[in-house]
Amino acid sequence: MIRMQDIADKLGISKGTVSKALNGTANISEELQKKILETAVEMGYTKKLRRQKDEEQKLCILIDNTEYKAPHQFGYDIILGFRQLAEPAGYTVDVIQVNDKLQKSITYDAFMIQNNYKGSFVIGFSLSTPWMKDFYSSRIPAVLYDNYIPANPSVAYVGIDNTEGMALAVSHLKELGHKNIGYLSAALGSYIMQVRHKSFFQALRQTGLNADYTRARNAYLITECVERHLPKLLDMGVTAIICSHDQLAHAAICQCQQLGYHIPEELSIIGFDDLPFCAYTSPPMTTVRQNRIQIGKSAYCALESLLNHVSIGTLLLHAQLIVRESTSTVKTKHPT
Amino acid sequence: MIRMQDIADKLGISKGTVSKALNGTANISEELQKKILETAVEMGYTKKLRRQKDEEQKLCILIDNTEYKAPHQFGYDIILGFRQLAEPAGYTVDVIQVNDKLQKSITYDAFMIQNNYKGSFVIGFSLSTPWMKDFYSSRIPAVLYDNYIPANPSVAYVGIDNTEGMALAVSHLKELGHKNIGYLSAALGSYIMQVRHKSFFQALRQTGLNADYTRARNAYLITECVERHLPKLLDMGVTAIICSHDQLAHAAICQCQQLGYHIPEELSIIGFDDLPFCAYTSPPMTTVRQNRIQIGKSAYCALESLLNHVSIGTLLLHAQLIVRESTSTVKTKHPT
Repeated sequence: MIRMQDIADKLGISKGTVSKALNGTANISEELQKKILETAVEMGYTKKLRRQKDEEQKLCILIDNTEYKAPHQFGYDIILGFRQLAEPAGYTVDVIQVNDKLQKSITYDAFMIQNNYKGSFVIGFSLSTPWMKDFYSSRIPAVLYDNYIPANPSVAYVGIDNTEGMALAVSHLKELGHKNIGYLSAALGSYIMQVRHKSFFQALRQTGLNADYTRARNAYLITECVERHLPKLLDMGVTAIICSHDQLAHAAICQCQQLGYHIPEELSIIGFDDLPFCAYTSPPMTTVRQNRIQIGKSAYCALESLLNHVSIGTLLLHAQLIVRESTSTVKTKHPT
Repeated sequence: MIRMQDIADKLGISKGTVSKALNGTANISEELQKKILETAVEMGYTKKLRRQKDEEQKLCILIDNTEYKAPHQFGYDIILGFRQLAEPAGYTVDVIQVNDKLQKSITYDAFMIQNNYKGSFVIGFSLSTPWMKDFYSSRIPAVLYDNYIPANPSVAYVGIDNTEGMALAVSHLKELGHKNIGYLSAALGSYIMQVRHKSFFQALRQTGLNADYTRARNAYLITECVERHLPKLLDMGVTAIICSHDQLAHAAICQCQQLGYHIPEELSIIGFDDLPFCAYTSPPMTTVRQNRIQIGKSAYCALESLLNHVSIGTLLLHAQLIVRESTSTVKTKHPT
């Protein structure tokens, strides 16, 4: 195991200076601190468990692109579930919003060592978030919500089984008699949007439905989705649309109603996530639930396993279809 | 929640008789006991947690088709890993060999209720094992090693990430310069053999190698694999063969050597599982490791989550390629 003295020897400085840098003490230059941290990471330094026994045991939740401060926001319950298991187990949990600027100024491992975090739970990173590339070789345990990194024994992926969720949504529509189903999605710049997109076609094929590629459309902006792509799906004569997330499904419901469609009599719409508002849309929305408390709890289980050298790679929760009133059999055909 | 009295009322018998049947007391007829158990399962009866607090907390490991009694056997470490977490947590763990006869005589749920087991860890079931169909609707938590059941919140799948393992094996061979790779497999009657078979082609496509379907061959018997299918792969000019499990890889090494091939100079061979003997074959075998202690530990984590109503569906460990001496660059071509 690499000791502080080894880092000091390599850089030709004192062990005391190395200690200051690794513990984030302020009285050394920022430049020197960065150099020491980078060397520590390069040499594979990780803080000794023995040493940490006398210290506070700290974990962090690194969050980006996700609202979490109020109970109705997506990240709130995920964080709550994590804390519900982590805090009784004796951990302090810090929630840290990490922007691109911070991530470009320091590597993931260096950040974790400097702040004395034993492991992290990472929420809301897109494929282009800077630290995503660090996770391919990082050594400090990280559990990523909805992101998968192959072959690094220190990194796990947790989430719901989106393939199962999509299969439940498509089967539900097929049982209601729908044969012509469309898919409307956010841009495919995140891992999970790619998974849902692929799962949509897989589910169509498995149920024997037409899986022509033109029936899935995506755009970065919700407005572009509903103004540009939704009409094209309607022109194709779809009787049901699955949306990649609830906000988009809600926008699609509103847009279709403005175009004169009756939901669900003329068109069924299904969302993804089951955000709290879904029970209160008009009509209340059928959607695939991500149980966010359970996601948080299972993230803690995965992180605890990684900390104990059980290298979990993937942990998926069962998906659950919540059937409300935005789906039904095709009762009348919209006069196009 | 269904009470014993409800079951008694439905059958028109006393609550005492129901209690006897559910607790496996001997002094009622076998026929009546079966009827009571089946009715209990049908009505969704599960023993109350409150009641069990005063009792022994029992879990079981249900095992079939797998040797486990000696340290070198496949199931030994899996069971050990499970016990290493379950027993300190206060559970008694029974290991039960379950044959088809037992499984056809009683349903899974009825067996669990009758024997007072709170949950099970299931090892070695093929797709045709009788209780496999019970798991689609069972209510008593079950964690299945290497078997996946969709959409039942009481059932989880644990194992290593075979897709990742196969990708590591194919990448390793590609880096060594192999372009013409074959796959030899046990029969596809188990879930995991289907996953590995599919992953082989996926890995070939992802690395840009020829993924012609004739390069994967399977048979029920190892002898049939090596006597009938192996020569066909050699005729196709493969320079490397991946095998679905270590025993098959070892048989393939021996057969090739008898046919005059030098391993690895003329032909590379990779196994799957990393059984203890792999370090001692001639040459020592490159293989994809299933860390069996970790599988057992993660199975316990998954079962504990299910018991706490966190419905884990899939939990996969990172695969690890163990490079030994049965793989190398193609140094000389075998004179065919």
